[in-house]
Amino acid sequence: MGTLRIAVVGYGNIGRHAVEAVQAAPDMELAGVVRRSTTSEHAEELAGIEVVTDASALDKVDVALLCGPTRSIPQTAPQYLRRGIHTVDSFDIHGEELWRLRSSLDAVGREHGSVAVVSAGWDPGSDSMVRTLLLAMAPRGLTYTNFGPGMSMGHSVVAKSKPGVVDALSMTIPVGTGLHRRMVYVELEPGADLAAAATAIKEDEYFSSDETHVVAVPSIDAIKDVGHGVLMTRKGVSGTTHNQTFEFSMSIDNPALTSQIMVSCARAAALRLSPGAYTMPEIAPLDLLPGDRETLIKTLV
Amino acid sequence: MGTLRIAVVGYGNIGRHAVEAVQAAPDMELAGVVRRSTTSEHAEELAGIEVVTDASALDKVDVALLCGPTRSIPQTAPQYLRRGIHTVDSFDIHGEELWRLRSSLDAVGREHGSVAVVSAGWDPGSDSMVRTLLLAMAPRGLTYTNFGPGMSMGHSVVAKSKPGVVDALSMTIPVGTGLHRRMVYVELEPGADLAAAATAIKEDEYFSSDETHVVAVPSIDAIKDVGHGVLMTRKGVSGTTHNQTFEFSMSIDNPALTSQIMVSCARAAALRLSPGAYTMPEIAPLDLLPGDRETLIKTLV
Repeated sequence: MGTLRIAVVGYGNIGRHAVEAVQAAPDMELAGVVRRSTTSEHAEELAGIEVVTDASALDKVDVALLCGPTRSIPQTAPQYLRRGIHTVDSFDIHGEELWRLRSSLDAVGREHGSVAVVSAGWDPGSDSMVRTLLLAMAPRGLTYTNFGPGMSMGHSVVAKSKPGVVDALSMTIPVGTGLHRRMVYVELEPGADLAAAATAIKEDEYFSSDETHVVAVPSIDAIKDVGHGVLMTRKGVSGTTHNQTFEFSMSIDNPALTSQIMVSCARAAALRLSPGAYTMPEIAPLDLLPGDRETLIKTLV
Repeated sequence: MGTLRIAVVGYGNIGRHAVEAVQAAPDMELAGVVRRSTTSEHAEELAGIEVVTDASALDKVDVALLCGPTRSIPQTAPQYLRRGIHTVDSFDIHGEELWRLRSSLDAVGREHGSVAVVSAGWDPGSDSMVRTLLLAMAPRGLTYTNFGPGMSMGHSVVAKSKPGVVDALSMTIPVGTGLHRRMVYVELEPGADLAAAATAIKEDEYFSSDETHVVAVPSIDAIKDVGHGVLMTRKGVSGTTHNQTFEFSMSIDNPALTSQIMVSCARAAALRLSPGAYTMPEIAPLDLLPGDRETLIKTLV
């Protein structure tokens, strides 16, 4: 197989970093960027890059990286899968919704010979792989995934979507044992009611199970930092031996990591997986890497 | 598929813990233990367990966990694979030797419809999965795997095998940036020469590339503790974004973790993998777990 041709669908935070990650990948080339409209916004960054409003205008696309909002994924992904184009998304709602997306894309992929990698980010995503591995290493015990302090892109998008909110930044603050406080900073429309915005945010299922505080600020731009962190801990039992302890932590630029993971998953989708849909724990880590497998096994294992 | 029937081959440090881990697994039963001879050693622990000198005496074995010394694996594994019994070993030499073992068992497995999971421990093994994942998350950068302080079972067995050495304990001491000191404690035969033993140990390829000190002690039993640790760090680049930092650490009972990982890999071998040989980064983490996949995906991803 030659160079993989990748389309980046959506040119927000993730999409811009996805373009960089595709260009940095030794085995990929950027087929183009798909946007809702060919506005002149970001024209300088996009100089020399094919920008279209419909992926069918792009030549031979192997994989579409779906960088639009999470809630657009169930509608967007099938459009590509039906044309035999593999998809990678970073759908970020855990549990039932994730399972429903995986099930529906699995059916579409199997019918059309295409692969969907679902929820390819860091949580869900690489964290899910580590959580799964830790359970295989110490089957009984407790895992805590502590996020932050850092900006949650998914939560910020949801907060921004509420009436009266011009822009928003949702910070995730770890309070230990997998519990979090959400500090939501909002820039309001002139005359908008903070209490109404706060209620709308707190009632959304993204926020409803966490302690959430909504604070009005004059400018989101002035406080935005997309760094994030995770501290995952597990203490458990291997066989009958207790007190096995594990920690996984990271401190990262959030959109850069998310888009890099999507790019790595595009490789598995195009080269290694059978038609259908997969979450990251269903993918062998080695399938995410470029290069000769013999060399990788000799140097990594 | 019903309950998996597992044979434990070898009843040393790993074998004893493997028996416990098989008995603790909800989807497995112990077919029996294979030993070189049916000595009465450990008779109490083995009460109620079938002990044989040849696995062919055991009823319907799905997977053989090969718990003998690393250097016995290339000879032992094919004997099982040829009879259609899957194998899991924790072969602990990285690089060329590991690749050669994987290649030879791959051929045998494909010919006989059986699966070999090679080097299923924590390093090589679960650490290899994490190293691979980190490379997919930040493709450029440096990973350091720092071991210890803790007893290396593989190095201890090699040290014990040298002339004049009755028993040995090799401690791995991290000195940072993936470098280690090896403190090898030896209990000598009466009249044996420490200098000769030290030379034999230092010249072995297990020790030759590390700073190694050999110290005589009156009793290995008095100092033995099978706890171990790892601190793996990576600092690297996602896309074009630098300074992404990751850490994975653990503090564990070494044989308990190794045998638990072997047991988890037995599941992938029996239920998920096509005939051939696999190292752990070639296995999807979810394939290591028992239970309903839909439930696992809803709760872990």
